[in-house]
Amino acid sequence: MTAYDPQNPFAKILRGEFPCHKVYEDEHVLAFLDIMPRVPGHTLVIPKAPARNILDITPEDFAHVARAAHKIAGAAKQAFNADGITVQQFSEAAGGQVVFHLHMHVMPRHDGVALLPPASKKEETAVLEENAAKLKAALQG
Amino acid sequence: MTAYDPQNPFAKILRGEFPCHKVYEDEHVLAFLDIMPRVPGHTLVIPKAPARNILDITPEDFAHVARAAHKIAGAAKQAFNADGITVQQFSEAAGGQVVFHLHMHVMPRHDGVALLPPASKKEETAVLEENAAKLKAALQG
Repeated sequence: MTAYDPQNPFAKILRGEFPCHKVYEDEHVLAFLDIMPRVPGHTLVIPKAPARNILDITPEDFAHVARAAHKIAGAAKQAFNADGITVQQFSEAAGGQVVFHLHMHVMPRHDGVALLPPASKKEETAVLEENAAKLKAALQG
Repeated sequence: MTAYDPQNPFAKILRGEFPCHKVYEDEHVLAFLDIMPRVPGHTLVIPKAPARNILDITPEDFAHVARAAHKIAGAAKQAFNADGITVQQFSEAAGGQVVFHLHMHVMPRHDGVALLPPASKKEETAVLEENAAKLKAALQG
């Protein structure tokens, strides 16, 4: 497998070199909004550890990502009055991965509303800010 | 949210009332092949706890499922010489869920090979037995 590239965009977010719409952070993970969301509130959970994907992350770091995704899922249901949640995690290009720092997608879903295709359009900053605020409020509530 | 239904098919598998092509088991989880695989080796990881989906499972049980999915992913890469892995977890019908006991899909992927649509066709038992044996061998290797 290709080695971890510390210049990938999510590594830059972790180092504060790129901005993000942060939703949650703890010792092990960071969660922020996807800027090309497939649904409103589409959130990415990433480990702080430099892992490319499921094939090189440690079991414990993957468990940390999952715990945070679980937390985000509950908050997203509340914040967006969601009917369901879709979680996805893609490893390597063959698995659907585009950015090569492990990330788990958490997407609030509504009955009858399909996901947009991946990377359909960049969301407006004001909308992302509003959705991040809703999620943070639900996480603190 | 609808309450957990102990008569769902995965609860019956856990109680031994339905058969399965078991790949892995520990104190907290069971992993077995999807009988309508979207790719060869498509595996489901379920908690032994009676959880409907991500909205009612405990964080620790979700972490147990994730740790097992991580283990299966590594084994699936080896067993099927996979180029990547796709992990999915659907909660409630709006999220894509069909069987209402939490399950995490782990699918070995190959470059240029799309996933079959969900529930396309029931795989032959001999093929499932062979793929379960490959995964078990990789898990023990």
